[in-house]
Amino acid sequence: MSVDDDLDLPFYDDYFGPNKPLALSDIDTASINSLDSAGSDNNLIRQRNAPSRVDQARRLWKFNYQEASIYLQEGGNNDKFDTHPHSHKALPAYLLVHQTWFYVMDLAVSLLLLGLAVFEPPAFYTVNIAIHGSLELFALVLLGVELGLKMRWLGPKAFATHKRTMIKSVTLVVMFAEAIIVLIRQKSHIRVTRALRPIFLIDSHYCGGVRRTLRQILQSLPPIVDMLVLLLFFMLIFAILGFYFFSQNPDDPYFQTLEDSFINLFVLLTTANYPDVMMPAYKQSRWSSMFFILYLSLVLYFLMNLLLAVVYDTFLGIEKSKFCKLFLHKREAAERAFRLLVSRRNPSFVSWTHFHGLMTHYRPNKSERDVYLAFKAINTSGDGKLSLEEFYRVYEGARFSWKHESAGAWFETWKLPTPLFIVAKGTYRLVTHKFFEYFIYLIISINGCWILADTIIISNDKNKTVADVEITWNAILFVTIYVVEALLKIIGLGAWTYFHSGWNVFDFLVTVAGIVGTLGQNFETGEDQDLTFHYILVLRPLRLLRLFKVKKRYRDVLGTFFALLPRMVSVAVALLIFYFFFSIIGMEAFNGLPLADCCNGSSLADYYRNASNSPQFYLNNFDDILRSGVTLFELTVVNNWYIIMNGHVAVTTKWTYLYFMLFYIVTMVVLTIIVAFILEAFLFRIQWERKMDESIDDDRIEVAVSISRDEFETHFPQPWIQQDTITLADSLQTTYTVCFRGVRMRTRDDLSTQMYRDEVKDWLREEAERQEMELRRSDLEVESENREGRSNTV
Amino acid sequence: MSVDDDLDLPFYDDYFGPNKPLALSDIDTASINSLDSAGSDNNLIRQRNAPSRVDQARRLWKFNYQEASIYLQEGGNNDKFDTHPHSHKALPAYLLVHQTWFYVMDLAVSLLLLGLAVFEPPAFYTVNIAIHGSLELFALVLLGVELGLKMRWLGPKAFATHKRTMIKSVTLVVMFAEAIIVLIRQKSHIRVTRALRPIFLIDSHYCGGVRRTLRQILQSLPPIVDMLVLLLFFMLIFAILGFYFFSQNPDDPYFQTLEDSFINLFVLLTTANYPDVMMPAYKQSRWSSMFFILYLSLVLYFLMNLLLAVVYDTFLGIEKSKFCKLFLHKREAAERAFRLLVSRRNPSFVSWTHFHGLMTHYRPNKSERDVYLAFKAINTSGDGKLSLEEFYRVYEGARFSWKHESAGAWFETWKLPTPLFIVAKGTYRLVTHKFFEYFIYLIISINGCWILADTIIISNDKNKTVADVEITWNAILFVTIYVVEALLKIIGLGAWTYFHSGWNVFDFLVTVAGIVGTLGQNFETGEDQDLTFHYILVLRPLRLLRLFKVKKRYRDVLGTFFALLPRMVSVAVALLIFYFFFSIIGMEAFNGLPLADCCNGSSLADYYRNASNSPQFYLNNFDDILRSGVTLFELTVVNNWYIIMNGHVAVTTKWTYLYFMLFYIVTMVVLTIIVAFILEAFLFRIQWERKMDESIDDDRIEVAVSISRDEFETHFPQPWIQQDTITLADSLQTTYTVCFRGVRMRTRDDLSTQMYRDEVKDWLREEAERQEMELRRSDLEVESENREGRSNTV
Repeated sequence: MSVDDDLDLPFYDDYFGPNKPLALSDIDTASINSLDSAGSDNNLIRQRNAPSRVDQARRLWKFNYQEASIYLQEGGNNDKFDTHPHSHKALPAYLLVHQTWFYVMDLAVSLLLLGLAVFEPPAFYTVNIAIHGSLELFALVLLGVELGLKMRWLGPKAFATHKRTMIKSVTLVVMFAEAIIVLIRQKSHIRVTRALRPIFLIDSHYCGGVRRTLRQILQSLPPIVDMLVLLLFFMLIFAILGFYFFSQNPDDPYFQTLEDSFINLFVLLTTANYPDVMMPAYKQSRWSSMFFILYLSLVLYFLMNLLLAVVYDTFLGIEKSKFCKLFLHKREAAERAFRLLVSRRNPSFVSWTHFHGLMTHYRPNKSERDVYLAFKAINTSGDGKLSLEEFYRVYEGARFSWKHESAGAWFETWKLPTPLFIVAKGTYRLVTHKFFEYFIYLIISINGCWILADTIIISNDKNKTVADVEITWNAILFVTIYVVEALLKIIGLGAWTYFHSGWNVFDFLVTVAGIVGTLGQNFETGEDQDLTFHYILVLRPLRLLRLFKVKKRYRDVLGTFFALLPRMVSVAVALLIFYFFFSIIGMEAFNGLPLADCCNGSSLADYYRNASNSPQFYLNNFDDILRSGVTLFELTVVNNWYIIMNGHVAVTTKWTYLYFMLFYIVTMVVLTIIVAFILEAFLFRIQWERKMDESIDDDRIEVAVSISRDEFETHFPQPWIQQDTITLADSLQTTYTVCFRGVRMRTRDDLSTQMYRDEVKDWLREEAERQEMELRRSDLEVESENREGRSNTV
Repeated sequence: MSVDDDLDLPFYDDYFGPNKPLALSDIDTASINSLDSAGSDNNLIRQRNAPSRVDQARRLWKFNYQEASIYLQEGGNNDKFDTHPHSHKALPAYLLVHQTWFYVMDLAVSLLLLGLAVFEPPAFYTVNIAIHGSLELFALVLLGVELGLKMRWLGPKAFATHKRTMIKSVTLVVMFAEAIIVLIRQKSHIRVTRALRPIFLIDSHYCGGVRRTLRQILQSLPPIVDMLVLLLFFMLIFAILGFYFFSQNPDDPYFQTLEDSFINLFVLLTTANYPDVMMPAYKQSRWSSMFFILYLSLVLYFLMNLLLAVVYDTFLGIEKSKFCKLFLHKREAAERAFRLLVSRRNPSFVSWTHFHGLMTHYRPNKSERDVYLAFKAINTSGDGKLSLEEFYRVYEGARFSWKHESAGAWFETWKLPTPLFIVAKGTYRLVTHKFFEYFIYLIISINGCWILADTIIISNDKNKTVADVEITWNAILFVTIYVVEALLKIIGLGAWTYFHSGWNVFDFLVTVAGIVGTLGQNFETGEDQDLTFHYILVLRPLRLLRLFKVKKRYRDVLGTFFALLPRMVSVAVALLIFYFFFSIIGMEAFNGLPLADCCNGSSLADYYRNASNSPQFYLNNFDDILRSGVTLFELTVVNNWYIIMNGHVAVTTKWTYLYFMLFYIVTMVVLTIIVAFILEAFLFRIQWERKMDESIDDDRIEVAVSISRDEFETHFPQPWIQQDTITLADSLQTTYTVCFRGVRMRTRDDLSTQMYRDEVKDWLREEAERQEMELRRSDLEVESENREGRSNTV
């Protein structure tokens, strides 16, 4: 950092003060001129007391870097700017709260709190009440401390108006009281409030995606509710009709009362009791089947699909507006950061010095080399300073990982002795040849057929069971081939490259499992049949999955799957939160019911009989959190759910229907949204490819940056060079520049930006208009202030 | 028709010859000049033998009108132009085949052939073999005659290359042979070929939509097959894993062999055997539930939704390209018709005379008034002659129905005597007032609550059954109110207007049913409880459906439903054809199986027991065509389908699995396509509204045409005036023009044209380029021919 740069003060140094945005158009020539004269003043000052001025400037810049980095973080995390720390005092708390270890701790505590459900009665694994009680208290205290820090940073007013935080605080207080009561009484009472524990998880930093999913579900609700009302209305009409038509048939237990009629038609909507519910009426008159066919066609095939269409459409709209909001929010964050990074001398550009300063806070782990390359990459004009338009791309820039282009295979970099070099190079050529891949596919196919044939033989041979499966020569042969393949690939590509491909890792794991299974099976003999190794061996068919790389459509499916994965996880967590909520309620309400042999005399008797040849539905209960989870999954799948429901109703009251029906409606809505979500994600991808006339086969974006020798010597510290010294030095000997290649994953945002290119332009125009309006208003204010000020001075 | 017009010969009179299209650009000034001189020659000729010339010209024009109208028909029906009658000899057959009574006969014969399945063994209603045998022979002979006519018109070569017709012919021959064998042996043999009978239905004129749906299903197949392979692959892997994991548990009947494992996982894909299939393994170890949860999440929730996405996307693409093809085909048809209608003097415009001539063939039922108004409506330039661009809209023009604008309510038109007029006008004001509607809604709501309350009372009262329901004063009151409402509306709006609204017709029918039910119930007393009238009365809650008009989203749903109806019917017919196909095969293979009490000892025993408290699944059989239909519907709904499958397997062979699994896959595919179809239709509508910023509340397109008194006197023949003489005469007295309003339904095509506006432009540009290329080629050919010709004459 040169002294000159140091003395160039930030243009905007009102850091962490009341954040009034300073519009860029304010930076007119007049102010620049006045700054220039100030600069020349500085020159004079510098000659007198340069060191202290430099220190002061550095201090000023440091704070600006910090705040700019906070802005970028807020933009990236989609945090609102009104939770931005607004005073110096708030900063330590803010910085503490926004550190990785703090995030992890928060997440761990939330998970611990959820995990307690395993030990609390009705427990899956019983522990002393003192243990889980104090664990709970400990977690709650930690969460309380976290909330205190948040209050310190937000200030009481912002704290009280932040809805999510307020809900969290109230819940915390209630739970705290309950935990203390439990510890004092040394006995658990009915604690339905435990169902609210996921609130802490939702609020934790890493669950941003879950929050978004939940918000999307809430936003999709109004049209869904409309459709549900329609559905219930038709159900009611058909329930009345069904009652009138079929209640006179004494053999028909399904329509004896209006209530029966309604509940059975509700269950029929899920098809779970079809055709059973129709059979008595059908036996009496074959034409009565028309009633059921009409009902199912209308309600199940028409209305439920309409529901999907409505949800899908709402979802599409929400996705777009969400993307728009996020896009503009990120832009504004970048703008605010930009304002803090421009200096008085250069009020419309960010220089390398200040970009570097920002990155030391924003991405402290990145080396100077990476930061410099990112700077060059987003500096498309190549003039060594970033305009606002260029600075907008700072998020993308920060995500590249760099490699210099001339870097070849590992054996070239490492300068192996010649014989080894030749071997490695030969192996490299072999494993990158396409016939090698085809050969492996062939081997896998043969192996697959072999496994199938083996299985068929065992399955048909009455004398053999699965436990008799022995290691045959062919299993050993195939494992050997896979080991050789993995070794060749590791030698040819280098371990780093090999393990950076998901498929290779998958292969490696399956191969290791194969070795372990084979060895384990070999060592164990006859007597103490432990089947652990056996199960490992059984995983062999998984390798067949690799055959999917062969066909374009399957690659697409897999690509979609992996592209969807982060958002799928969010949806899955949201679903698990619903499960947890209903599990706790279910456990509090239904645990320990005597379901086995419960319903003798009714049609449910067979299902609940505790005999070896009955379906043993009494296992589908709410006796602990894991059982509850499985039971709820069964309810989600819907088939035969009414048997579980009726079983529980039989041993409790009719109000139990409410719990099960409510759960059905909630999961139906959530599942419909998941379907809409998968549809949307997949179709988005297909349509993107069609619109851009480009395939997303390679989910990466690359950029190339060339670096001159001067730049290399300035920005590339020695320690880094060690890795591939020779090649780089070679390149710089022969040419004067060396080219670096930056790679980052292509995210959904990148696709969306391209897909909604026209819309993005519209939004930007609207945003610009809005800003101009505001600006004009603030201009007027400033003018009137100035006038006042002038009149004061005059 | 003036004599001058008559002598203006068609520009292109090579009618029904080898149809070489004559490009419009050929009509250059040179040819027009030569025609003009020809015209002056004609003048001379006319003075000599005008009558014969006029006759000849008329004859020429008549043929051209005929052929142009055939082109328009072909364009509208999406018939290919290579089935266009190409010679004079073909014309009578063509005209015969393309008449409404012929279409109806063809449809009736096809339906008769399908309907025979009711009487043929295994029969729903047994008749003598001679009767159904000769009916079949009769239908086949008729179809044979029809095919003969088609051959006559198409010519043997076109006949042999037309795939659909060839398949039809071959099927016909086989069926003919079989029918004769049956009649000779006086005994039915196994006739699986009956499953092919729907071919005749598909080919009939009114099933164009069904043909299109089937084509769409076929076109969606390739990506579906890919996804199915993926599905089966995962199923196989899980089947192997399941076999290894669970086959050692002797209590688990689902995974004893690989075959069991596969079939049970196939059934699990439909969720029909969940959670039963999991319970034995779950009892042994609760962690085994992971296997099933993983399988269902992957196969059911991920892959099946992916399948939907793939189908939906394919479907969307097909819809667009189909629309493009149809659009261009119609345009080309209009172009060809246009070429036949331009005259030598006016080679680039169609005059009113020739448009009228065309319409007398194309729409013989339309009055001259309607044709003239349509002409004025599509003649947007107002110059009294149609350019090609205007003529393209001939299809839309022909679909308007006209009403003159000053036509008021019926009582104004009919000039009622004053007291009646006042009453009618008062009633009109009453029923069109919005409070009247709200009042009726209120009444319906109260009635609905009353019915619900009544039903609950009956349902809770153990001493009463539905048969005891008596006519109470309130039922009579409500029926009276509805009758009064209907009468008021008929008086106020006029019967014509009243019955032209679907909702009113619905109300009217429910009211009539109410009256009939009330009266019938009243006359019947105690002893011979015939419940016919009772059932009619029970339909009362249906009126509640009218409440759906209140909310915008529900109106949308209903609007979509009605907009979808024609295409829904096509899909339903396609589905029914699949049902018929599988029914016949099912009946031939499985009829008369001893299913009752079939499976004693197995877990199916309860389902098939012939006792009053069992589900009596033995009724789900293939004993006649109606039973088969219901059984197949149950298989479509999927729940408990494996019980039906296993029952049939138990009394036949294992190959029976194939039939049921195949049927499941087919219906799954068809249902997925139906879902995609409903999604598409609904989303199209929503997105259209959003894009056009316009709601499709009113599904009609209106156009206004003003007519001068001269035009009125020329084109509006007297008989028509009678209807609303007075108003029209009045209007023409005061103003010199009278305005007519044309109304037609807004079709999907109209929406598509607007929705795909940009794409349409692209297609037209491409089409124009293609044509220009062709033109240039033909120009070159013509030039070289000319050159040859010239060199010959020189």
